[in-house]
Amino acid sequence: MPRYALKIEYDGTPFQGWQRQAPGQPSVQAALEAALARLQPGEHTVAAAGRTDAGVHATGQVAHCDLDREWDTFRLAGAINAWLRPDPVAVLAVARVADDFHARFSARERRYLFRLVTRRAPVTHDRGRVWQLPQPLDAGLMRQGAAHLIGKHDFTTFRAALCQAASPVKTLDEIAIETRDYPEGQEIRFTLRARSFLHNQVRSIIGTLAQVGAGHWPPERVAEALAARDRAACGPVCPPQGLYLAGVGYPQDPFGG
Amino acid sequence: MPRYALKIEYDGTPFQGWQRQAPGQPSVQAALEAALARLQPGEHTVAAAGRTDAGVHATGQVAHCDLDREWDTFRLAGAINAWLRPDPVAVLAVARVADDFHARFSARERRYLFRLVTRRAPVTHDRGRVWQLPQPLDAGLMRQGAAHLIGKHDFTTFRAALCQAASPVKTLDEIAIETRDYPEGQEIRFTLRARSFLHNQVRSIIGTLAQVGAGHWPPERVAEALAARDRAACGPVCPPQGLYLAGVGYPQDPFGG
Repeated sequence: MPRYALKIEYDGTPFQGWQRQAPGQPSVQAALEAALARLQPGEHTVAAAGRTDAGVHATGQVAHCDLDREWDTFRLAGAINAWLRPDPVAVLAVARVADDFHARFSARERRYLFRLVTRRAPVTHDRGRVWQLPQPLDAGLMRQGAAHLIGKHDFTTFRAALCQAASPVKTLDEIAIETRDYPEGQEIRFTLRARSFLHNQVRSIIGTLAQVGAGHWPPERVAEALAARDRAACGPVCPPQGLYLAGVGYPQDPFGG
Repeated sequence: MPRYALKIEYDGTPFQGWQRQAPGQPSVQAALEAALARLQPGEHTVAAAGRTDAGVHATGQVAHCDLDREWDTFRLAGAINAWLRPDPVAVLAVARVADDFHARFSARERRYLFRLVTRRAPVTHDRGRVWQLPQPLDAGLMRQGAAHLIGKHDFTTFRAALCQAASPVKTLDEIAIETRDYPEGQEIRFTLRARSFLHNQVRSIIGTLAQVGAGHWPPERVAEALAARDRAACGPVCPPQGLYLAGVGYPQDPFGG
C-alpha cells in the first residue's frame, strides 16, 4: 500500500489533543482518520511525529498514512481538506514516501513555538492562541535561565509524572527567546528545538522561565532545579494554549522544502 | 458628569456588530454598556467612532461614555475589563476628555485594515479573522486599480443600498497594499484611510480589487465603475471577517500617543 506523509496545521482549542480518545471525545487524529475513511472505506491509522496535548496547536505537525491506491498528492490534500470541514484542521502538503518512512520514528528533530503575551488588558483576537500574563517579563533574565538547559541533561525536573519515555535524558539543542511589539503590551516568542521532548517538557520549561522573567527566581535557580532531578523543583507548568508544534525534521524532508 | 474616551479591541465573531440590537442579540455596544452598569447602576450609552458590522473586528475602536464620578483611568480600564469577561472585548486605554469630545463627531480620520489570505488549504488559526481565497492575487494589479479611488469622489458605486450618509461624496486618503508570507500561501494587507467611510465602502472596494487581482477585471475598470455612480457596477462585496477598525484620529489624540 502506498504511504503518504501529511504536513498538518490545526487549532487545538476544540480537541482533547492529537491522540484518538474514547468515542465522542474529539481529537485531531480521529478527525483525520474519519476524513480518510470518506476517501477509502475501512479503518485508518494516522501516526504523528508529536502527540500534542489538549489545547496545543500545530503549524507543522507531520503524520503518515497508508492508502490502497496511488493519489496525485495535490488532489489528495484537497480531498482530505474537503472532508475535514468544518474542523479547524488543514493538510498543508502531502508527499509520497517510502514504506519505511514513519512520521514518529523517522523524525530527527521537533521544533516548538511558544507564544506568551504580557499586557494588562485581556487578549481578544488571540484568545486560546497565546498564554497571557498581566506583568512585563525580562527577556534577558529568561535567556540567562534558559542557557542552563541547553545540551544533554537528565530532565526529570521538567517531565510530567505521567511521562512514558524510557529515559529522562534528552538533548535540548536550542531555546531562542525573541520579543516583538504587541498592542499595548509585548509578545515573547520561545523556539525550542530537540530530537525529542519529554511529556510536558516545553510547558514545564516555559513556566519555569516565566518565574525567572518575573524576577521571582534568579536565573541560576534554573540550573539548581535541573540538577535536583526532582519534579517538585520545577516552576509551575504553564497552560497549553500558547504552544505550537511548529515543525519536524527528517533525514530527508519528505515535502522537498 | 466626567466624560471618558475608551480605546477598544474586539473580536467581532460572536457579535451582531457594534450597535445595540434587540434584546438577546449580542453587540459590542451592549456588552460595554452592561459592564458600565456594573460599575455605576443605571442606563449607559456608549457612542463609538465607527459602527462596525456583524463579524467585523477592531484593534483601535474609540468610544466615549459619561460617568457620575472621577475615576483613575488605569483603574477604570481594569474594572471595565473585569466586567466584560468572558466577552472578547477589551478596553486598551481610558482617557479623561472634555465634555465636548465626541468619539464619532470629533473624529477626523478612520483607519481600516483588511486581511486577505490566499492559499489552497483552509486557514485554521485565523478562521474568522481573515478572508480566504484559494488562488493567488496580483498585488501590483490591485495597486493600479486602487489608485483610481484615491481622492474626492462620488462613491455611490461602493456604497450599500442601506447607507444612511447624507452624501455619497467622500475623500479617500490612502489605500496601501502590502504582501507578506503566510504558511503555504500569501497574506495581503490593505490599509484604508479617510475622514469617514460610507456603509460597506471598504468591503465593496476590497471585493472589487480582488476581481482585479484575480485578473477578472483590468485595473482601469475600477475607474469606470467609480464613474458609473451605480451600485450595479461594483464588484462582489467581500465578507466581513477580514475587516478591522484599526484606528481613529482626532485633532488631539485623547490617549496621548
